[in-house]
Amino acid sequence: MSPERVPLCLDLLPALRGEDTTKSFFQELVNILLSYVCKSFRRSSKVLDFHHPHQLREGLEGFSLELPDQPENLEQLLVDCRDTLKYGVKTGTVRAVDCFAENVPKMYYRFTYEVSPVFILMEEILLRKMQEIVGWSEEEGDGVFCPGGTMSNLYSVLLARYHFFPEVKTKGMTALPRLILFTSAHSHYSVKKSAAVLGIGSDNVVVGCVPFYVNATAGTTVYGAFDPLNAIADICESHGLWLHVDAAWGGGLLMSKRHRVKLQGIERAWSVTWNPHKMMGAPLQCSAILVKKRGLLKDCNQMCAEYLFQTDKHYDTSYDTGDKTIQCGRHVDVFKLWLMWKAKGSEGFESQVNKCLENAEHLFDKLKQRPDFELVFKSEPEHSNVCFWYIPPSLRNMSPGPERNRRLHEVAPKIKAKMMEQGMAMIGYQPLGDKVNFFRCVFSNPATQTEDVDYLLEEIASLGHDICIRTETDL
Amino acid sequence: MSPERVPLCLDLLPALRGEDTTKSFFQELVNILLSYVCKSFRRSSKVLDFHHPHQLREGLEGFSLELPDQPENLEQLLVDCRDTLKYGVKTGTVRAVDCFAENVPKMYYRFTYEVSPVFILMEEILLRKMQEIVGWSEEEGDGVFCPGGTMSNLYSVLLARYHFFPEVKTKGMTALPRLILFTSAHSHYSVKKSAAVLGIGSDNVVVGCVPFYVNATAGTTVYGAFDPLNAIADICESHGLWLHVDAAWGGGLLMSKRHRVKLQGIERAWSVTWNPHKMMGAPLQCSAILVKKRGLLKDCNQMCAEYLFQTDKHYDTSYDTGDKTIQCGRHVDVFKLWLMWKAKGSEGFESQVNKCLENAEHLFDKLKQRPDFELVFKSEPEHSNVCFWYIPPSLRNMSPGPERNRRLHEVAPKIKAKMMEQGMAMIGYQPLGDKVNFFRCVFSNPATQTEDVDYLLEEIASLGHDICIRTETDL
Ligand SMILES: Cc1ncc(COP(=O)(O)O)c(C=O)c1O
Ligand SMILES: Cc1ncc(COP(=O)(O)O)c(C=O)c1O
Repeated sequence: MSPERVPLCLDLLPALRGEDTTKSFFQELVNILLSYVCKSFRRSSKVLDFHHPHQLREGLEGFSLELPDQPENLEQLLVDCRDTLKYGVKTGTVRAVDCFAENVPKMYYRFTYEVSPVFILMEEILLRKMQEIVGWSEEEGDGVFCPGGTMSNLYSVLLARYHFFPEVKTKGMTALPRLILFTSAHSHYSVKKSAAVLGIGSDNVVVGCVPFYVNATAGTTVYGAFDPLNAIADICESHGLWLHVDAAWGGGLLMSKRHRVKLQGIERAWSVTWNPHKMMGAPLQCSAILVKKRGLLKDCNQMCAEYLFQTDKHYDTSYDTGDKTIQCGRHVDVFKLWLMWKAKGSEGFESQVNKCLENAEHLFDKLKQRPDFELVFKSEPEHSNVCFWYIPPSLRNMSPGPERNRRLHEVAPKIKAKMMEQGMAMIGYQPLGDKVNFFRCVFSNPATQTEDVDYLLEEIASLGHDICIRTETDL
Repeated sequence: MSPERVPLCLDLLPALRGEDTTKSFFQELVNILLSYVCKSFRRSSKVLDFHHPHQLREGLEGFSLELPDQPENLEQLLVDCRDTLKYGVKTGTVRAVDCFAENVPKMYYRFTYEVSPVFILMEEILLRKMQEIVGWSEEEGDGVFCPGGTMSNLYSVLLARYHFFPEVKTKGMTALPRLILFTSAHSHYSVKKSAAVLGIGSDNVVVGCVPFYVNATAGTTVYGAFDPLNAIADICESHGLWLHVDAAWGGGLLMSKRHRVKLQGIERAWSVTWNPHKMMGAPLQCSAILVKKRGLLKDCNQMCAEYLFQTDKHYDTSYDTGDKTIQCGRHVDVFKLWLMWKAKGSEGFESQVNKCLENAEHLFDKLKQRPDFELVFKSEPEHSNVCFWYIPPSLRNMSPGPERNRRLHEVAPKIKAKMMEQGMAMIGYQPLGDKVNFFRCVFSNPATQTEDVDYLLEEIASLGHDICIRTETDL
């Protein structure tokens, strides 16, 4: 066990002054919330302080929505929080604070500019920033935040299908030829799930008739491997196929000058899934689908519900983004990412990502040296995933083969069960293809130190040393 | 403007002691969070304190997950919050608190019992309670919380299709006859959207070839009308059709002994959408899809990703509910509803719902008496929606016809624009069918008083009195 250290507020706050800072920061936040709540109770307060999109975008009284490279200080973050509440609408079920009572009869609105002016602009600015990082030009790009990477991937298939066969929206799949999706064996199961949900059928993922969609994974779930994006893009281009890059897990590496090379070619994608709730540490849920072709999201998904999307409003209704989504009311996922970006700056995300990958490299190096562990892959990790087996003494001198595999397969679950009952650490395991149960370590928390990595290894080794693995004859 | 009154903490807290109570309650919450955070920073604290599902369900050290009829007091709510954190897993991106740094390398897990023990059980208990309220027996019923009612409705179509044509999951729609969905003209557009997304095609909603699904709306979005559930269920039964009840908006009335009669027959539905984030006042997002037939959700949606759903775990893996959903990682929507239920009790929800409907009745009575307003429907409101026109002086003596309609159509947008610039109130309007733009008032906030309703009417009348509506000759 590593000795007790100074609390690591680094990840929570952009300051290193420890618990007291955390406390007073929280205290101030509470004061802001309290004064907001108490004001809301008063019938004399305004429901909203209306400003047109361009006014809010340009920055009112110093309230800037732009995302910085360098972190802001704590005082400024508090001001940002206060301003976010100030320019938001004080009525409504549409907000993170909407559990508070309102003063006027509640109106039924969802994700139109008038009820969510600040959040709609925050979403626009975040999507723009992410598209710029992906490498799309100013003229390209659209997107929405989704309830998770699975839904983002579903959007990509939905849009690709609509792009090639717009009649599917009204006529359904009966009007279409049998469609085929390409993806790799290690891609996330959400691609198959999307095909099942959308009525394409999971069997039509990989082999079939009219190919229209290729999913390339940038950072696979288990191994953290990157598909060769440029090579895949070349093929897609020559066959006119939709290229989707599932960077749900690998997208965070785009923030790092050192590591973004692994995603070279991502700018050629027609759509990209990127989950800030993974590598960038945003609280779940926070996922975006980025779409290169403007207008497609709206054409594909709009149903023009009159009760929501009137065109005779007194402001620019292109900011009523609700009809781009397959949802109606949406949870506000953008604010937390926006505030994190203010707090860390692009550079903060960069060092965070670098740190996680350094931890993975450290673990990899350690594992290489130890006789009681075996790496699933001998090559350097591409992402922060490291996969390995613990080899108990009884298996160390055994020759490879089915009997060793059968016994090795039981090791990880046994260690894991012991670990969970102790509760001091937690690690996942799974089998994959011809590989029996192995541990998978994934670093996405920059507060993790190399000592923690070492501790985890020792913990596994000490729990694993004495486990009893049944031999063939015991069965 | 009604005079300043004592703050209404009623809706926020189950006590009426005003701002001080609010303050000290928040303060205590902050203390709980702070001590949790600081503890998490310490490397000596446990990642989790593992308990088997049945242990947690039975209630550990007084921590009861059951939902009460009567409200709990504030002290108990604080204890509930503390216990929720205590029995949760302290690592992980999987939690509402996951922005805090962790102590061990972060593992990649989603919605399996081991990472979300408390929330998975809360979800189970809430779904059970809602199913009981809907009227299903102990042996029936399954469900999940969804990111909104639109997604809940999408689930219902997805499940109905799978129920009748399980081959769709692997083979896609090509293997199926042309499918037809029935719904009413006033149903929410999410039914059409679901058909478009799922590859059925929005044209196949209403008329067509092989009917398999009927959507009945309990509480339409605009008028708050209830479809006759028993009559529809009779037809569905005799033709073997899937009956879905979209009670996204009307579901809240089930909590009221006085009003639940409007949903008579809902227990005959095969699936039900119910949004606690609407009438019950839960912060968005909070929506559930309830499914009568057990096992269908899992059969329809599971993809058996090995990396998540191992079967060689040391606990009852039926609690790994993740594969029932079409998402992967999910936002925790259950905790807020669970805590609200503790704070209000079933009875608290009941009086809240009754209060909202009383406000609607009050508004309806007022409108009936006034010559400057006209009701869209002369009959008593069924839900808390009230739809009406403001009739400016220049139109009051005009005879009905296209010219009056043209001019009346412009009234609501003009008043609304003025209102938004003033910012003192907010109300929605829309046209529908042959009805020109009308205001729609929806009460879902029990803190609204009859004075607020009166204020709103006066406000509309005073803004509307002087607006200038162009006559034909101005054009
Ligand atoms: C590569 C990849 N894509 C998509 C997803 C799905 O993301 P979510 O859990 O947000 O639905 C994951 C999740 O692990 C993933 O690793
Ligand atoms: C009857 C009905 N069903 C479904 C929905 C969609 O709910 P959500 O906004 O949570 O997606 C609504 C929303 O207004 C509704 O009124």
